[in-house]
Amino acid sequence: MSLMTVGSVAFDAIETPFGKTDKIIGGAGTFIALSSSNFVKEQKIISVVGDDFPQEMLDVLAARGVDLTGLQIKQGEKTFFWSGRYHNDMNSRDTLVTELNVLEHFDPIIPESCQNVEFLMLGNLTPTVQRTVIERLKVRPKLIAMDTMNFWMDIMMDELKKTLKLIDVLIINDEEARQLSGEYSLKKASKVIREMGPKYLIIKKGEHGALLFHGEQTFFAPALPLEEVFDPTGAGDTFAGGFIGYLAATGEVSFDNMKRAIIAGSALASFSVEKFGTERLLEISQKDIEQRIEEFISLTNFEMVQIV
Amino acid sequence: MSLMTVGSVAFDAIETPFGKTDKIIGGAGTFIALSSSNFVKEQKIISVVGDDFPQEMLDVLAARGVDLTGLQIKQGEKTFFWSGRYHNDMNSRDTLVTELNVLEHFDPIIPESCQNVEFLMLGNLTPTVQRTVIERLKVRPKLIAMDTMNFWMDIMMDELKKTLKLIDVLIINDEEARQLSGEYSLKKASKVIREMGPKYLIIKKGEHGALLFHGEQTFFAPALPLEEVFDPTGAGDTFAGGFIGYLAATGEVSFDNMKRAIIAGSALASFSVEKFGTERLLEISQKDIEQRIEEFISLTNFEMVQIV
Repeated sequence: MSLMTVGSVAFDAIETPFGKTDKIIGGAGTFIALSSSNFVKEQKIISVVGDDFPQEMLDVLAARGVDLTGLQIKQGEKTFFWSGRYHNDMNSRDTLVTELNVLEHFDPIIPESCQNVEFLMLGNLTPTVQRTVIERLKVRPKLIAMDTMNFWMDIMMDELKKTLKLIDVLIINDEEARQLSGEYSLKKASKVIREMGPKYLIIKKGEHGALLFHGEQTFFAPALPLEEVFDPTGAGDTFAGGFIGYLAATGEVSFDNMKRAIIAGSALASFSVEKFGTERLLEISQKDIEQRIEEFISLTNFEMVQIV
Repeated sequence: MSLMTVGSVAFDAIETPFGKTDKIIGGAGTFIALSSSNFVKEQKIISVVGDDFPQEMLDVLAARGVDLTGLQIKQGEKTFFWSGRYHNDMNSRDTLVTELNVLEHFDPIIPESCQNVEFLMLGNLTPTVQRTVIERLKVRPKLIAMDTMNFWMDIMMDELKKTLKLIDVLIINDEEARQLSGEYSLKKASKVIREMGPKYLIIKKGEHGALLFHGEQTFFAPALPLEEVFDPTGAGDTFAGGFIGYLAATGEVSFDNMKRAIIAGSALASFSVEKFGTERLLEISQKDIEQRIEEFISLTNFEMVQIV
């Protein structure tokens, strides 16, 4: 089924304990589209770049079935740029530079060819832009999933809450879930947040896996224990891309299928952290992904037997 | 198959954000024996108390099939006492009082009736006492599992390493695994620690579940998302008790059976935190445990389908 992603296509510069990069390709939209392209053969993207963005990367996206009609290229302007430095534990980071550039006045125009999508993934952006996209769609998608971050909770909680009312699946991390709900227990937080709109809530816990909440049901997805996390940038977006890509490819919106979609997303994310930026995502094959999914199955699979 | 536990039988006084207790029954040996008694109908315990320890609790243990021949009652001496206060997040705590009392000169005497056990659980005690027990057994048990803590790593690492050489399964938490190995990545830590002796390593991650490592195999057990953790005291011991009790009841030492044993231990531990001390463990029925295990199964169960 048809999939559309809204999210930044950008430059990153990253420092980790393992090394640093110059400006490399990043952005939530980029990671989501690259990740989901492993499952869906055609998709749309709504985004904006400046005239400094390399044509080669646009060609890579197009070759993977990403329709770029909705990607605005602003002549004379510069692409969004973020630079950050990870701490030794790789779980926290400092932002060194944020240059909004083309994102500052981003108006998400939806070309006619991007109408009538069935699955919509709203990558992390201002909640206002995210809501504008929903409002500009003539037909509501079958499923709207959304990522956000603590920054928007700090500075525009009211806008965020308006957008949350319109979506189906919210994907955030544990700290964000605690901030958004005011509850420490993730189980309690999941109830508070689902009263704000989304019927499904995914809470990402990094190296501790992810939780899916819906109604009275809960699913706990593991994370693969890794020897080394080389660069966590984009891991959350890669997860979201694998998740929505799997859903769009299978077309089924159900708790059971979301469980599978989370495993697919977790598998993709586990590759993403192995190298800087999008590098690893551009290398992996269908076979690599299948093997990684097998590892997730064996990681959590058990069968109880009755003790007499 | 026969099971023996070595561990403290003690008094605790606990403060949490939800309330505080006077002196109540605690101790690693108590929690392990109560928890494992859900799976094994007869077991031994090696421990020591003073003459201030209530006969009622000894009767409770005996009624659950715990042979108290190896429990020394020191006339004119006092039972081990620990008091602690949990912080608001319930993940960290301050020790307020530690009175070693009878534990200070604890000599773990093994009565003849406690020889020839097949499963041995060494609860957290000085590594020297733990090793003494192993050395005093005429026949090596089929499986020796052991718990320890960062305190012993701080003050007697050499003794701890000598004891680790003699055991099969080490059960510690993530911080302890990092301290013992000097590695941040739990996967790397698991290799370093297993080179110290134990062929199986269980790393407990509290609300994030537990990992089992053996050879090249890894298993990730979830923790049940709880609305409230009322009192975490003894949760780790309850986990260990459920684990070793399940293994002893089924008799099979294999990776697959240890996965089941970890789920059993996790289920028991999820009850233990619901009330102060041993209170909840003394209430639950076989049916409660089976239902909780079913919750764990549905929490992690998924089936992937092939995407064409």
